[in-house]
Amino acid sequence: MTNIETKTFPIEALREFCTRVFLHLGVPSDGAAQAADVLASADLRGIDSHGVARLYSYFGMLSEGHINPTPQIKVVHSTLSTATVDGDNGLGLVVGPHANRIAMDMAEKAGSGWVSVRNTNHYGIAGYYVLQALERDMIGWAMTNSTALVAPLWGAERMLGTNPIAIAFPGKEEPPIVIDMATSAAAYGKIEIAKRLGKPVPQGWAIDSEGRGTTNPDDLIAGGALLPLGSDRERGAHKGYGLSVMVDILCGPLSGANWGPFAPPFALRQELPKRSVGKGIGHFFGAMRIDGFMDADSFKRQIDDYIRVFRATKPAPGTNGPLIPGDPEREMEKIRSKNGVPLILPVIEDLRDISRKTGIPFD
Amino acid sequence: MTNIETKTFPIEALREFCTRVFLHLGVPSDGAAQAADVLASADLRGIDSHGVARLYSYFGMLSEGHINPTPQIKVVHSTLSTATVDGDNGLGLVVGPHANRIAMDMAEKAGSGWVSVRNTNHYGIAGYYVLQALERDMIGWAMTNSTALVAPLWGAERMLGTNPIAIAFPGKEEPPIVIDMATSAAAYGKIEIAKRLGKPVPQGWAIDSEGRGTTNPDDLIAGGALLPLGSDRERGAHKGYGLSVMVDILCGPLSGANWGPFAPPFALRQELPKRSVGKGIGHFFGAMRIDGFMDADSFKRQIDDYIRVFRATKPAPGTNGPLIPGDPEREMEKIRSKNGVPLILPVIEDLRDISRKTGIPFD
Repeated sequence: MTNIETKTFPIEALREFCTRVFLHLGVPSDGAAQAADVLASADLRGIDSHGVARLYSYFGMLSEGHINPTPQIKVVHSTLSTATVDGDNGLGLVVGPHANRIAMDMAEKAGSGWVSVRNTNHYGIAGYYVLQALERDMIGWAMTNSTALVAPLWGAERMLGTNPIAIAFPGKEEPPIVIDMATSAAAYGKIEIAKRLGKPVPQGWAIDSEGRGTTNPDDLIAGGALLPLGSDRERGAHKGYGLSVMVDILCGPLSGANWGPFAPPFALRQELPKRSVGKGIGHFFGAMRIDGFMDADSFKRQIDDYIRVFRATKPAPGTNGPLIPGDPEREMEKIRSKNGVPLILPVIEDLRDISRKTGIPFD
Repeated sequence: MTNIETKTFPIEALREFCTRVFLHLGVPSDGAAQAADVLASADLRGIDSHGVARLYSYFGMLSEGHINPTPQIKVVHSTLSTATVDGDNGLGLVVGPHANRIAMDMAEKAGSGWVSVRNTNHYGIAGYYVLQALERDMIGWAMTNSTALVAPLWGAERMLGTNPIAIAFPGKEEPPIVIDMATSAAAYGKIEIAKRLGKPVPQGWAIDSEGRGTTNPDDLIAGGALLPLGSDRERGAHKGYGLSVMVDILCGPLSGANWGPFAPPFALRQELPKRSVGKGIGHFFGAMRIDGFMDADSFKRQIDDYIRVFRATKPAPGTNGPLIPGDPEREMEKIRSKNGVPLILPVIEDLRDISRKTGIPFD
């Protein structure tokens, strides 16, 4: 699809490198392995922007003391089925899985568990968390807010993160349905790829710094913004904006984290928000026991039926018909587990730089 | 905006008429008042398609015995924070509020409550339910599946309802943020209006019966389908499709209701689905105590700050800047509470027909 030069690495080599880098930066061994696992999951599933491509940012933030390698993660408030967790400014890749386990443990006892997390950092792909819930026969929900990149409908500046929502449902014989989606029309990573290739982006992805629609990726990068899912008023961008606000509030104001334009940046050398309205960024996790509603086996059989019915949809012209959410990522995981993960040269350069600075071999 | 002739009625007259019609059809007095209240809420908030405009369908379904006027609504399965409710084929306008109260009552004790409902019918506007939760200092969630009208991305037939999601967050001095959105790019009602005016609809709303994009409203009505939020692959229609699937599964397979193309029709004389995979349609309600996460007063102050910050967003050219979700409906409610509800002539004709058939005066 794109003509960008890549080199392929076995997933185990990447996982090992990430683990050793986190250890080197003072992250305890279970946390280092956990963090590497979340990144590896993104690379395997083809969400390249959220895998080892981000190690350099985590490395910078940990090296310079902006992220706490040994957080004391605490439940600061709770009921039988809800809790607020303070991540003590730890890695989101460690705080996220911890808080997600709290949600699942609550669900074990109370039927469901809902956890809002503050004082945390970027947690990788939302899909990782909902896949964990499947292993315990639960329906998992995961959301996070993040650094502002998206304009509200009719706004001309960055006010919201790409604020993803994920949820998954298990089948019995069929693979699970896994929904994992940013609430923006397109991902920032796609704009970066267009820029690298010197190509325009489609209408409806971005505005420039004056709030005018643009197809030039440079306009977005130079202070423009992404558009919410729906792209414009006629096609429902108020809905994408509403979903993004929903995610932001469940993660931010509900936990005491920062929200909207005040979410702190993920990498060094990014502009700091004008003020702080909370601690770190925020996540939101949910877990519901399937048998809190109905027999888990019957539910999974219905999901099998569901998947088969949707696969049999009459196809639109020029297509092979609808996919089931989660299909592309699962197929990618199958391929990359076997053949390795292709990395672009700028990412490889970053990893080599980390290697030079830490003495941990790479290549 | 549109040149369609209307006549205006005081909301109390409409509410009274609806209540008497439901009573006439055998709905007990508390249920009749409840059902009329949900319809009135839609008319007040400007969601014309979901208010008294639907009374004719409810009338037909009740008259011909397709909806049970005196349902025994039962919790058939539960944990501390989850439940499955069987609506005994009652009016969704009665079953929905009942199940929503169960979710809120559970939340009172367990911090949160989550209810999946089967064997029910169309429940009006999703926003109604989340406004109820606000009154109890809770964050309410409401979803429902419905008769298939929407194609999955890359599909050429109706497989999903417009499957709405609603959620609301209270402010302290500011009015609440109320998100209430169908997961399709546009509402069916908007296509009907375009047809009435003889105007084309925007690209990205609909496909014809062969799955080709169309701007002719007749193509949709003659067996085409609505498109999911996002409209096409480039602009993220896989996300709108994913959200619709999420709503469908939480309402359908999780409760034992019908799902996807098998959701039963809402009105008489509509085609019956090919097979039944459950009972009736399904809803899904959630309620979370705000103080299950943090002090409710602090949360509301943050929401005030949130609303003010978003209102102050730099406006896009040619606009007054972003709205807060819920603004248009609240402003409409203010106007219509005072000035009445404008109804189009075909709706008035339907209500007069009901009046003739029941002897209940209208006009």
